[in-house]
Amino acid sequence: MTGPRYTPLVASLPATVPFVGPETQERARGRPFRARLGANESGFGPAPRALAAMREAAAEVWKYGDAQSHDLRAALAAGLRVGFGNLIVGEGIDGLLGYLVRLLVAPGDAVVTSAGAYPTFNYHVSGYGGALHKVPYRDDREDPVALAAEAARVGAKLVYFANPDNPMGSWHTADTVARLIAAMPEGCLLVLDEAYLEFAPEGTAPPIEAEDDRVIRMRTFSKAHGMAGARVGYAIAAEPLIAAFDKVRNHFGMCRIRERARPSAFGHQFRQHRLRRRWCAGAARGRGAGGTGRFRAHALRGTRKPLYPRFDRPRGRTRHPCRRTARGAGRGPRRALTRAQAVASAAARAAATRSSCRSTSISISEITSKLRSS
Amino acid sequence: MTGPRYTPLVASLPATVPFVGPETQERARGRPFRARLGANESGFGPAPRALAAMREAAAEVWKYGDAQSHDLRAALAAGLRVGFGNLIVGEGIDGLLGYLVRLLVAPGDAVVTSAGAYPTFNYHVSGYGGALHKVPYRDDREDPVALAAEAARVGAKLVYFANPDNPMGSWHTADTVARLIAAMPEGCLLVLDEAYLEFAPEGTAPPIEAEDDRVIRMRTFSKAHGMAGARVGYAIAAEPLIAAFDKVRNHFGMCRIRERARPSAFGHQFRQHRLRRRWCAGAARGRGAGGTGRFRAHALRGTRKPLYPRFDRPRGRTRHPCRRTARGAGRGPRRALTRAQAVASAAARAAATRSSCRSTSISISEITSKLRSS
Repeated sequence: MTGPRYTPLVASLPATVPFVGPETQERARGRPFRARLGANESGFGPAPRALAAMREAAAEVWKYGDAQSHDLRAALAAGLRVGFGNLIVGEGIDGLLGYLVRLLVAPGDAVVTSAGAYPTFNYHVSGYGGALHKVPYRDDREDPVALAAEAARVGAKLVYFANPDNPMGSWHTADTVARLIAAMPEGCLLVLDEAYLEFAPEGTAPPIEAEDDRVIRMRTFSKAHGMAGARVGYAIAAEPLIAAFDKVRNHFGMCRIRERARPSAFGHQFRQHRLRRRWCAGAARGRGAGGTGRFRAHALRGTRKPLYPRFDRPRGRTRHPCRRTARGAGRGPRRALTRAQAVASAAARAAATRSSCRSTSISISEITSKLRSS
Repeated sequence: MTGPRYTPLVASLPATVPFVGPETQERARGRPFRARLGANESGFGPAPRALAAMREAAAEVWKYGDAQSHDLRAALAAGLRVGFGNLIVGEGIDGLLGYLVRLLVAPGDAVVTSAGAYPTFNYHVSGYGGALHKVPYRDDREDPVALAAEAARVGAKLVYFANPDNPMGSWHTADTVARLIAAMPEGCLLVLDEAYLEFAPEGTAPPIEAEDDRVIRMRTFSKAHGMAGARVGYAIAAEPLIAAFDKVRNHFGMCRIRERARPSAFGHQFRQHRLRRRWCAGAARGRGAGGTGRFRAHALRGTRKPLYPRFDRPRGRTRHPCRRTARGAGRGPRRALTRAQAVASAAARAAATRSSCRSTSISISEITSKLRSS
């Protein structure tokens, strides 16, 4: 028996994993991490109302999810002022990137990205046999001019550009992004990964016509919305491109429970605003706006203001888990912390609670030095 | 601007959807269905402990899921007495079938299935450019002899065989399945879809060496475990084949919440046993074991025995939702119903509660006639 006959492409693929998760690393080292770093998860977790909606939806888990994710898409489309047909929901940005690459990239097709940019995108490109062309960062950030030039040079079908960028923590202005879109060569699509958009200053996203067929925008509930484990990503693009996803996607790939997280999670503009303000303030205090710091400010900045204002304060059992571990519920009024106090206290909490550390947003060197000295 | 340049394969694909979900159909007709038929969902829902586990896990949704689904895989592997490396967990059987086809099927490669078998499998084969060869049913059930012969004739890389089969409700004995595996031509893999295995009589699944590289078995939490909306499927196969999934899959595609449903859901052998007994009894009273009835017996048969015995009876808020709508919680002791009473009562309940009907397991003609007459 020869065993299964893999396609030549699959047989040629190395056995790589684009991103090794913390649980995998913990099992390899034989003990848990004191802090979950590296994936920029939000220890704030989802909004209490989103959490309550998910818990309620669990009772309906015997039904398949809606293959069209109609209600979630409609809410997103209304919030973003785009057509229902301009939006698709999928299993995280990772899942949507996979489908997009499958739609466009046949073996040998050229794709352009930055050296050091998102490895999971590269994983998909290699997985479909695409030829990756990498452009170096310039001044520790993505280089839009070089990306466009390389796309023209190699006749790329797809260019990847994250704004803001992870892991650099940098971002480009709306004008620069608009110029990059305008510079896309004929028949080349820009993947604008905006997973971290909610942390960037207002106006970082340029106005883009939903029917502009030079660009597809990817967003997620995993970062600012604190629902990484729910795997909800969405993409905004021209209708024909969105419709093409239906030719290849796993129509019933979405968990029903997570589809229900929508109303509280997406409508929570106020919360996003606070996250953004904290991040920008942190960036300004750190290495400068547009600089090279990691996304680190929002979780650990001392502030008198709670993340959840009164109208959204969780009640009874739906009390936000983050407050319980982080602030010590019932221990009296919150104190305003200095930044140093906040960092030290977060590190201590991380060591104590292990899995519920909120410190994803602080730079690795900062937290490890604090952990060592604690 | 020419717009995105799709691959020639994608450009050639029709805009089809393999399975139109009930929500989509409801929106098209402008009103809800009185009963959710067609996808064989289980109105019993998940075991109460699985539900409680999912609700508890919701608080951890800020973390990405474990990319290896380690705990769930370990539990399944232990329960099935196969190695950890013989098992993979994915976004439903649909998701796993997609990955499997991608691993093996390049454009033009031959794949064999039964005419009338699972359309989502065909969707994936067409999506990767495979050449589908369909074998007709024989005596209203799958024809293993013809499947093996066709596989040899066309040099197939993959053969699809569901046991028990949906939509026919028929199944083949373990011996027949073992003979089909033995008849697989050199280099041809049998996909043995056992989504409905828990409903079939004991001994329907033949003993298969986990390292047998002629077959991959697919199973799911969607049917007997009542968690269709959680999208948890798993596959059992030889280690090299399971390892190959890591080359192409969406490593972070699983919702963290659903990973946690494991302990109660899988270990619940007692419950499965009852489901199976009811289904077999129903099939015997209906059109005969191995006949052509739909999977219909378990939900609507009158019985004095509760599905959940005392040790698993839900308490307090985790009371099983199914009992609430279906038996009228708090209305006194349950009565034993005749089959006709049970059907009529189910139809009435379906009309009353619309979305919580438990009647997926009754044949369509039966339920529609009852609905009309009610």
